[in-house]
Amino acid sequence: MGSLDPFFYPESVAIIGASRQPGSVGHELLRVMVENKERGLFRGRLYAVNPRAREPILGVPTYPRVEDVPDVIDLGVIVVPARIVPDVIDECGRKGVRSVIVISGGFAEVGEEGARLQRELVERARRYGMRVVGPNCVGIVVPESGLDTMFLPYHKELGGRSLDSLPRPRPGAVSLLSQSGAFGVACIDYMAGEGIGLAKFVSYGNKADVDEVELIEYLADDPKTRVIVLYAESIDRGRDFIEAARRATLKKPIVVLKAGRTSAGARAASSHTAALAGVDEVYDAAFRQAGIVRVYEVEELFDVTKALVMQPPAPGRRVAVLTDGGGAGVMTVDELESGGAEIAVLSEESQRRFEELREAGVIPPISSTQNPVDLTGSATDDAFVESLDVLLDDPCVDGVVVLPLHHVPGLTSSLPERIARVSEGRGKPVVVCDIGMGTYGNAFREEFERRGIPAYPTPERAARAMLALIRYGEARRRLIRESL
Amino acid sequence: MGSLDPFFYPESVAIIGASRQPGSVGHELLRVMVENKERGLFRGRLYAVNPRAREPILGVPTYPRVEDVPDVIDLGVIVVPARIVPDVIDECGRKGVRSVIVISGGFAEVGEEGARLQRELVERARRYGMRVVGPNCVGIVVPESGLDTMFLPYHKELGGRSLDSLPRPRPGAVSLLSQSGAFGVACIDYMAGEGIGLAKFVSYGNKADVDEVELIEYLADDPKTRVIVLYAESIDRGRDFIEAARRATLKKPIVVLKAGRTSAGARAASSHTAALAGVDEVYDAAFRQAGIVRVYEVEELFDVTKALVMQPPAPGRRVAVLTDGGGAGVMTVDELESGGAEIAVLSEESQRRFEELREAGVIPPISSTQNPVDLTGSATDDAFVESLDVLLDDPCVDGVVVLPLHHVPGLTSSLPERIARVSEGRGKPVVVCDIGMGTYGNAFREEFERRGIPAYPTPERAARAMLALIRYGEARRRLIRESL
Repeated sequence: MGSLDPFFYPESVAIIGASRQPGSVGHELLRVMVENKERGLFRGRLYAVNPRAREPILGVPTYPRVEDVPDVIDLGVIVVPARIVPDVIDECGRKGVRSVIVISGGFAEVGEEGARLQRELVERARRYGMRVVGPNCVGIVVPESGLDTMFLPYHKELGGRSLDSLPRPRPGAVSLLSQSGAFGVACIDYMAGEGIGLAKFVSYGNKADVDEVELIEYLADDPKTRVIVLYAESIDRGRDFIEAARRATLKKPIVVLKAGRTSAGARAASSHTAALAGVDEVYDAAFRQAGIVRVYEVEELFDVTKALVMQPPAPGRRVAVLTDGGGAGVMTVDELESGGAEIAVLSEESQRRFEELREAGVIPPISSTQNPVDLTGSATDDAFVESLDVLLDDPCVDGVVVLPLHHVPGLTSSLPERIARVSEGRGKPVVVCDIGMGTYGNAFREEFERRGIPAYPTPERAARAMLALIRYGEARRRLIRESL
Repeated sequence: MGSLDPFFYPESVAIIGASRQPGSVGHELLRVMVENKERGLFRGRLYAVNPRAREPILGVPTYPRVEDVPDVIDLGVIVVPARIVPDVIDECGRKGVRSVIVISGGFAEVGEEGARLQRELVERARRYGMRVVGPNCVGIVVPESGLDTMFLPYHKELGGRSLDSLPRPRPGAVSLLSQSGAFGVACIDYMAGEGIGLAKFVSYGNKADVDEVELIEYLADDPKTRVIVLYAESIDRGRDFIEAARRATLKKPIVVLKAGRTSAGARAASSHTAALAGVDEVYDAAFRQAGIVRVYEVEELFDVTKALVMQPPAPGRRVAVLTDGGGAGVMTVDELESGGAEIAVLSEESQRRFEELREAGVIPPISSTQNPVDLTGSATDDAFVESLDVLLDDPCVDGVVVLPLHHVPGLTSSLPERIARVSEGRGKPVVVCDIGMGTYGNAFREEFERRGIPAYPTPERAARAMLALIRYGEARRRLIRESL
């Protein structure tokens, strides 16, 4: 069980099954790696293997067989047809390649003959102590090292323009594991568009060898990964999974989206991956035991992940809400309460300080200073910052949802920086909501996020982010107690 | 009870309390109307009233008293301090103004003295047969007629740029009623950013006279309104509300977001609007009886509204899912089933046609043609269009969620038009999901929406849109049966 490092930081990569044919997987995959090398993202050595080619493909030195490559190969990426994969595994083994990604499909997912081929693949790999990711996957993306085996079109035409059809996220703190290749690719696009940075992406496909358990163990110790995200349709080694997830959760949060939660969904999942999706209650119990932050939707997956990257877990479940719009405050409270948070009862000291702020004219006279604290349409930057300071000082408050709806005249573009400054180092999470999808609303939320405060366009999404910070905090404290 | 027409289509408007002072409500409100007149949006006559002004303000003819205006006034917009509002009502009454919007706050929402002032306001208005919207509101916006009383800043500075801080939606088919002014404003911004067209927006505030019941009655007969959206924290005339909503629902859907659904939320709501929010179960029963499509979140509010504008209600609850990504298909099924839809069992005729398509090479050989129909990463435009045709022909299918995740090589920018064409006139709703927030994903979804197919960035949001089309269809059929 060597380290998985070569999968993420290979110094030399061979694309086995590289092709001259634009549009083919073997061509597109090589092209992405060549472009990453040209752009200085991938700094390793690149080779191509194709039995019929002796000339370089896309400028990459190309050899008929793996064994002909005149260099050590850290990582082999295999895109040949399924039936010849076992022989290629042998070639790799003889060459001393110890890590391979098998992109090719046509294995267990297509029936018994494919399953036999997959067993053959694993047996041969084991003979050489070789580790395998896949088969039937889109492989691995590491923005930091420039490794990127996603073979899908970079650009597509739309309305006469060539658009970036699969944008890559910037390097960041989130690692994504996906059983489904197509969904993993979609998530990559989603993260790029939402500005969420990526540490490592692994599409692990049929998980013939390396599976989600081992990947979680690896990422738990990966200094670049601060949050682990898992999309799964089935989990096979339940006990090991729980153990690995518990150990990881002590260090960093794991967010899981498990598809096939309804009976119809489970049937659909089993026809998709041929895996028994299992009873959802069992998964739910396992996730709870492991301290996993379970989510139920794609949007929630990334909303929550963003919050966990940017903010500390909540020390408890008592939340304060600070708003300039009463209605939005009510909706936030609705979502917090139905999600299991408590609406904090503010301390007398806080009430005293709010009265001082009111008398000093810092907060509007008609402000409501019960929780939710409503500064009304007469709110100013000062009113928000001073009120947030009171709430973060309050020993009865574990986290604050701030809703500075930007439309009121008194709020300015200085607010994001000031909110970030007053929130820093308080040990309590702060999340923001500003409603509006126009240019100002979008830019205003971005200003918060640039300063580490996650910002959402609806009260419910902000509330759910806070709920996840509460759940992770609770899970972590419980696991620490249990591990003493 | 005259018609409410003058509130939406006034030929002459007087801003009473107009001001020279930039930043004041009386100035900003007049400025918006002047700009709309200059841009040709408002084609009526505009007057200003200010006791201390004899010169035009912002070029608008200005008079010391309402009675001095040398013209008939269809609509008065009052922004003077609360305590003098009753006298201004008298002035308006003597002048023959029969419709006024009272923007000013300081009435029932601030306590007993304000409540007394509000009763006084209503009594005086009744003497003249005058109708009142407000007080304590941001008033009315009608993109079609150029009436716009939102007095909040048009532009704000951010990062050295002047950005549109409150974009207005284009003229369209959705009318929005909001008890909360701040939330209404936020919704306007949200709709503008999401490209949802607006028919009429009414912030009805303290509803001293015109309330949500009468507004629903009016909008039910308004040919420009195809969907009515209501944000409410409390509803007072329960029985009348149910009756009005039932009659409206026979003609067009009503979507309601009721805040204060939890006990903590209800407490927060009652401190916000001084209205008893009431027990949520009672509201829920009333909404069901009235055939209302109830939603629980801001995002869902507009996702569902968009679907109801663009697509017909579903004739039943059996849904088919058509995808090129198995995982996304599973998530769609999960959300559909947990929301009460049935996953359609396809007819034998459909199975026969899918086999023909498979043999003809139109759909990939490894496609799964049970529902969800998964065309896999080898999907093409043809495969999607022909499969959708099969599903829409199937008598066991009442609606289709289509997930053409754009990353696969075989899909092109021709697909939105072809999907729209094959969906047209089938009497069954079609909604789309493509995951990804990059430039291509955003543009691809826009292409669908330009052609009347609502498109969402996650499977769950698309599924919930379909669920609303099912719920509206069921409610409407039930109300038709009951009204026979």
